[in-house]
Parts: sequence; structure tokens; C-alpha cells
Amino acid sequence: MTRKELIAEIQKKRTFLCVGLDTDINKIPKHLLSEPDPIFAFNRAIIDATAPYCIAYKPNLAFYECAGLAGWQSLEQTIAYLRITYPHHFIIADAKRGDIGNTSAMYARCFFDQMDVDAVTVAPYMGQDSVTPFLGRNGKWVILLALTSNPGSHDFQLITDTGGTPLFGQVLQKSQQWADADNMMYVVGATQGRMFEQIRRFVPHHFLLVPGIGAQGGSLEEVCRYGMTDECGLIVNSSRAIIYADPTTDFAHVAAERAQEIQQQMDALL
Amino acid sequence: MTRKELIAEIQKKRTFLCVGLDTDINKIPKHLLSEPDPIFAFNRAIIDATAPYCIAYKPNLAFYECAGLAGWQSLEQTIAYLRITYPHHFIIADAKRGDIGNTSAMYARCFFDQMDVDAVTVAPYMGQDSVTPFLGRNGKWVILLALTSNPGSHDFQLITDTGGTPLFGQVLQKSQQWADADNMMYVVGATQGRMFEQIRRFVPHHFLLVPGIGAQGGSLEEVCRYGMTDECGLIVNSSRAIIYADPTTDFAHVAAERAQEIQQQMDALL
Repeated sequence: MTRKELIAEIQKKRTFLCVGLDTDINKIPKHLLSEPDPIFAFNRAIIDATAPYCIAYKPNLAFYECAGLAGWQSLEQTIAYLRITYPHHFIIADAKRGDIGNTSAMYARCFFDQMDVDAVTVAPYMGQDSVTPFLGRNGKWVILLALTSNPGSHDFQLITDTGGTPLFGQVLQKSQQWADADNMMYVVGATQGRMFEQIRRFVPHHFLLVPGIGAQGGSLEEVCRYGMTDECGLIVNSSRAIIYADPTTDFAHVAAERAQEIQQQMDALL
Repeated sequence: MTRKELIAEIQKKRTFLCVGLDTDINKIPKHLLSEPDPIFAFNRAIIDATAPYCIAYKPNLAFYECAGLAGWQSLEQTIAYLRITYPHHFIIADAKRGDIGNTSAMYARCFFDQMDVDAVTVAPYMGQDSVTPFLGRNGKWVILLALTSNPGSHDFQLITDTGGTPLFGQVLQKSQQWADADNMMYVVGATQGRMFEQIRRFVPHHFLLVPGIGAQGGSLEEVCRYGMTDECGLIVNSSRAIIYADPTTDFAHVAAERAQEIQQQMDALL
């Protein structure tokens, strides 16, 4: 999906919500466990219920890999279902990959050529040749970790160099030499509050993928106050607060309600 | 595998070689393509041929994920085969994972509880809570990226803070508060040459996993001169130069010869 198409979807649907498919077999409603593929059955129901209120889905790979072969099958099924049934939704493989050049190229093949997702999250620690193999496909995106939502984000990302630039700023600066705002986004955690002002000084026009509202405690209003651009420039993710809102047979209906509540807040903020 | 057991294996076999199983369907000998699982058939032959000359195997996950379900199956088969047939070899899942705490915990379950590997490579960018969920299992290891072998290692890993410490040094320092030399190793590329002296000032006793000899051009002698400890303290990986040394039906025999050559050099260096 191109930047132009993404912005058009946001404007049409009045939402910039991404639903995180962090699907854990221990947390899904018990009645689904008799399905042939409980994880996919859960995802399909969540997707069908929430699709009108979001513009993106983000499966986190860890939740699928932990089930081995069966998990990988659930992931492939989920992405294929999304591609066929909801072709206008943006699909993010939250993989946080990054390796030497020839290895990153294999990951890029996996996610873009085999699975056909729109974007992959990538960790920047290994530098340029770990990131660029994910680039160069039209309408496909790298979402590079910049300032993450977790407590450990303070351990290294805020370390300041002799010129006064924090590490996350170095990542934002250098990576703009590798790709532009049509192929690169950045992960900035909703928990970072006013730091979005600083982020926007480095990347005034790029889209930001923002996890951390809901279970992690970030504020949607604050993210928009300091991070929104005139083209929106935000994809805000919520996972647990939507998909596990209800543990009964009514789970999909309640998930839709939660997603709709967020969509209405987003409509007002746009 | 505990640190004591690892050191005993190195001393007994007079080698600290790790064979990287970066198995690419496009690079394996053509006659294997008629096997039901060509990747596993290749790995099994390479393992049987090289086992006397190495103490570790390191499948890089990208090479398996890029084949989707079939690739994941080849990986599980390879690890199960190693576990049963060569229980004294150290198995490293080269995954370079790292995510927020609850997600890293899922990856840890995947690699340690489901697959039962000995170690996982982890990227440090997201800090403490992205790393610690991989810790706390006896005989299981985190191998944290410190100073990698690729050109992009210069982009961020060498950035110096106001106190004069490079980022890789901060990673080495801080992570020692999370685990000790019995559960943590570090990735340092063989291409970094004399930088091993600086690494050893931060971590005099830890094991280092050293990729980058062979195809990437690092020197085994230099790595040992500046990086070896009195307990060895090194696991040196070679992938392409061993496993793709010969493209014919003779591939396993030639791989064994290459591995044996390196083992003999290591014997002399120990």
C-alpha cells in the first residue's frame, strides 16, 4: 500500500487505528479451543468485527512462533485471509528483525514476497545494511524502531552523543539517508508523551507507528497533540485492550465496541 | 549446556568452531532437491560430517522462515536431530529477537521450551525488559549483539556518549547487571580485529560468539590474539565457507575437510 492510499483510507474511514493481533492460546475464549485452528478462528472473528473501525492489523510474530509449526500456519492463514477479504487494510508483520545484509534479504523475501504484508518492523542496532534489504519494493515499508514504549527504552535509546543527539535521534537522522517518507515509518511508543515533539523535529512528515495505548498506559490525546501532522502521520496500535476485552462467546462483539470507541475518539482528533 | 560443560567440550575436542546452518534452497547440491525435505537432508549430512570438528551449530532463523511452513518444519527437524544424535553440541538459534517484556517472554518459550536450544541471539536496542525474559533458565543463554561483523555496525554501535563510551560498551556494561558470564555471551564480529582488546576490557571473562571468518573476511588468528581468554572464551562461527564448500554429491565430505582444517588451526591456537 502506498502512502497516498494509506492517507486516503484514514480520511475515508476517519480512523488511524491498528488492531494488534497478539493472539495467545491461553487468553482466547475457551469455546474456540475445539476449532481446528483456534488462533485463526479467533483472529478471523476479531478481524471481521473490527475491520470497519481500523485501517491496519499487526500480528506480532512471537505469538505465532511460540506455537511452532501450528503457529506459523495460523499466521499464514490470518495474513491470507486479510489479503483476500480486506485488501484495503494495511498489514504489519511486527517482527523486529534485522541481521547482516544477506540474512535481512532472506527475511524480506519471507515477509514481502511469501506473505505479502505491507510493512515489517526492523531493529536498527546493526545499521544500514541490515535495513536496506527490506527496501526497494513499491508500496512496501520498513518500520524502524526509534523510541519504543517499554521501560527498557531508557537503557540505550536515550544515550546522548557528544553532539547532544540521543541515539533514537541518530536513528531517525541516519535512516533518512536510506529511504524517504514513502517507504519508511518509525516506531514511537505512546508512553513517550511529550517526546513526540522532539521526534517531530527529526521527522516532521513520516508516519509513526505508535504502540502503547491501552494495556501499556499511553494516552491517545497526548500522542495526537504532540505527534499528529496535517496528513495524520500516525498509526496507533491497540492489542490487548481490544482483542481480550471480553473472554466469553461475545468476545468479537465487545472487541468491535472497543475498536469503535477508539475510532470515535480518533474521528474527533483528526 | 552450562559454562563448565561448554569449556570441557572445547578442551576435549580441541575446537571452538560453530558451524552456521544458513541453509539456502538455492545453494544446496541439486541432487538433494528430490528428497522429501531437502533442507533437512542437507543439514543432517553437514552435521554428521562436521560434528567431530565443532562444538556448536547455529541455524539462522531467516533461512528457515523464508520458506514459510516447510522451512519451520526443516528447522524443528534439524534441532530435534541435533538434540537426539549429538546431545553434547551447543545449539544457537540465531534469531536476533528482542521485544517488549511480554513478547520477549513468548520468544523465550518458543526457543527454550518448545525447541530446547541452548542459546538465542538477542538485539539490545529495546533494553533490559526485552532481554531479561530470555534469562532465568539453567544452562540456557542469551547471546546479546554487541559489535557485529557487518559494515552497518559502524552506524550506531560506535556512537560515543558524553563520557567517551561507545554504544557497544554501554551494552556490555549495562547488560552485566542483568546476567553473569554463566548465562550471557556477546556477539562480536571477527571483522572487528583489534577492537577485541577494547571488548575484553569490558567483559574479560564472558564467552564471545564470533561470526565473520570465511565469507565475511575476518581473521581467526587476530580474533584469538586479541579476544581469547585462559578458558578460551570464544565460539567462532563459519557458515558459507564450510557448508557451501562444494556443490556436488561430495559436499558433506568437503565440508568435513574444511571444518577439520579450522579445527586444526584452533587446536594450535588453544
